[in-house]
Amino acid sequence: MKPTYVSVIGGGDCTAAEQALAEEVGRLLAAEGSTLVCGGMGGVMEAAARGAKEAGGTTIGILPGHDRTQGNRYLDYVVTTGMGHARNLAVVSSGDVVIAIGGGYGTLSEIGLAAKIGRTVVILGGWQLEGGESIDDIHYASSALEAIRLIRRTLGPA
Amino acid sequence: MKPTYVSVIGGGDCTAAEQALAEEVGRLLAAEGSTLVCGGMGGVMEAAARGAKEAGGTTIGILPGHDRTQGNRYLDYVVTTGMGHARNLAVVSSGDVVIAIGGGYGTLSEIGLAAKIGRTVVILGGWQLEGGESIDDIHYASSALEAIRLIRRTLGPA
Amino acid sequence: MKPTYVSVIGGGDCTAAEQALAEEVGRLLAAEGSTLVCGGMGGVMEAAARGAKEAGGTTIGILPGHDRTQGNRYLDYVVTTGMGHARNLAVVSSGDVVIAIGGGYGTLSEIGLAAKIGRTVVILGGWQLEGGESIDDIHYASSALEAIRLIRRTLGPA
Amino acid sequence: MKPTYVSVIGGGDCTAAEQALAEEVGRLLAAEGSTLVCGGMGGVMEAAARGAKEAGGTTIGILPGHDRTQGNRYLDYVVTTGMGHARNLAVVSSGDVVIAIGGGYGTLSEIGLAAKIGRTVVILGGWQLEGGESIDDIHYASSALEAIRLIRRTLGPA
Repeated sequence: MKPTYVSVIGGGDCTAAEQALAEEVGRLLAAEGSTLVCGGMGGVMEAAARGAKEAGGTTIGILPGHDRTQGNRYLDYVVTTGMGHARNLAVVSSGDVVIAIGGGYGTLSEIGLAAKIGRTVVILGGWQLEGGESIDDIHYASSALEAIRLIRRTLGPA
Repeated sequence: MKPTYVSVIGGGDCTAAEQALAEEVGRLLAAEGSTLVCGGMGGVMEAAARGAKEAGGTTIGILPGHDRTQGNRYLDYVVTTGMGHARNLAVVSSGDVVIAIGGGYGTLSEIGLAAKIGRTVVILGGWQLEGGESIDDIHYASSALEAIRLIRRTLGPA
Repeated sequence: MKPTYVSVIGGGDCTAAEQALAEEVGRLLAAEGSTLVCGGMGGVMEAAARGAKEAGGTTIGILPGHDRTQGNRYLDYVVTTGMGHARNLAVVSSGDVVIAIGGGYGTLSEIGLAAKIGRTVVILGGWQLEGGESIDDIHYASSALEAIRLIRRTLGPA
Repeated sequence: MKPTYVSVIGGGDCTAAEQALAEEVGRLLAAEGSTLVCGGMGGVMEAAARGAKEAGGTTIGILPGHDRTQGNRYLDYVVTTGMGHARNLAVVSSGDVVIAIGGGYGTLSEIGLAAKIGRTVVILGGWQLEGGESIDDIHYASSALEAIRLIRRTLGPA
């Protein structure tokens, strides 16, 4: 069976609490055998990748620039795009589901792009979205464990 | 003086009320000499372009596909990108400010991308965003006239 | 009738001869009513836009960055993409046909992208391509006038 | 030490000879420990990935669409972009060097994009480029072994 890919999205600048949350999410995803996809830079992206590596998982980073060495050091595989923020589409597209951590604008754009192309999104702290078409595709979790449970509903058991 | 560019973003599917709002926004922007940029398709995009043309304005559409004839008929100039939803970045980047109408996911992604690259966004119905970094760059308007007034604060007088 | 769009592609660095050629192409295209599309920067792009404006034509520039003011001063309308060299696809996609001037690598990539999506390409100095599938879609001209004649075969009379 | 990434580019439609060549290139790259990057579809891309897997290597595919299952079956890791031919930039950007096989237009665009962003390109059959700035960055090989030797000059010993 092909492994599940989960994209963890979040800003390069983040709080210590968001970092801890991202790291826990990374660990849990790796523990159940999912491959972690992220934007490859610092902050939430780095913490999630670190967590995944702590649990023996596999990590893929998709960078905005052309220089592979700019990726954080917890990435097993790096794709460079040279397309700036347009790479956000590739980050969310590459996951079977998406977990969003924190309230950055780039993260907001990725939530929108993910839902637009039909990826289930779980928001774990940060943005709360009202007034739009968010009922079926965007879910809210209050802990890393709940986020994992929510994506399992979409993906089926690990 | 180079004219102001204003990107009006919104879904291809929209309500009659959103359509009327988009058309009014297009008219008001054209009346004060702004060039209208949009995603070039139907719904909000078409209504905004129609409004701008009614008031004698200029309209530019930036399409997701490769076929120029897919643009709505109120476009003066059409750019095709062939990049799917990644073209959303070009749509918001090309405006000096951005007005968002309606609650679609593509619109949500454009609000995020616009704010990420430093464009002021005025939301006119649809998404209400809490919990993130929206205080300075994202504004809410309850009428087309108020939206225009809000973007004028950013752009200076027409 | 919607006007023809012709994309003129070529490097930001170019020789004086290439600049003169680009300017003549721009003039001829404008004289027969075509809208000129280009990458919006200097060199061939600027010269072609200048030629088009001298003959009263309309010019559109599609920029790699996010700053509209970086476009050359002969552009009537500017789209910014923020996607770096990925914007090359939008430049060639937006033209009904493409004229390439000069031997830069970016130009080479645009010739390939244009032909890949079915645009007829006329090469006017610079690259000579052998060994590939260039027989039907890529033509060679030795003067600006011949380039215009060749694109007319594809587009029909102006 | 981080492994070398080599992008092998070539069309989805290719001859049996090109397929055999791509497979051999994939095998040789894997044998010396390089990670293979490709566009993830059929033809040259599939043959190169198959060769790499035969030799126990690692393969990454970067797809034009949003559906991971469209990648060929010899890919270890798949990134989906949803950007159509704009994904060509990510394919060549992700390699430290690029090997091109066959004469397709997409391949031509990738040769141009690769050289534009400073990647050394080795052409192994297919396009012969004259008249442009190809002297330093684009090399020609007449066998898979020679292609590997040429990229080793750029990358240093494996």
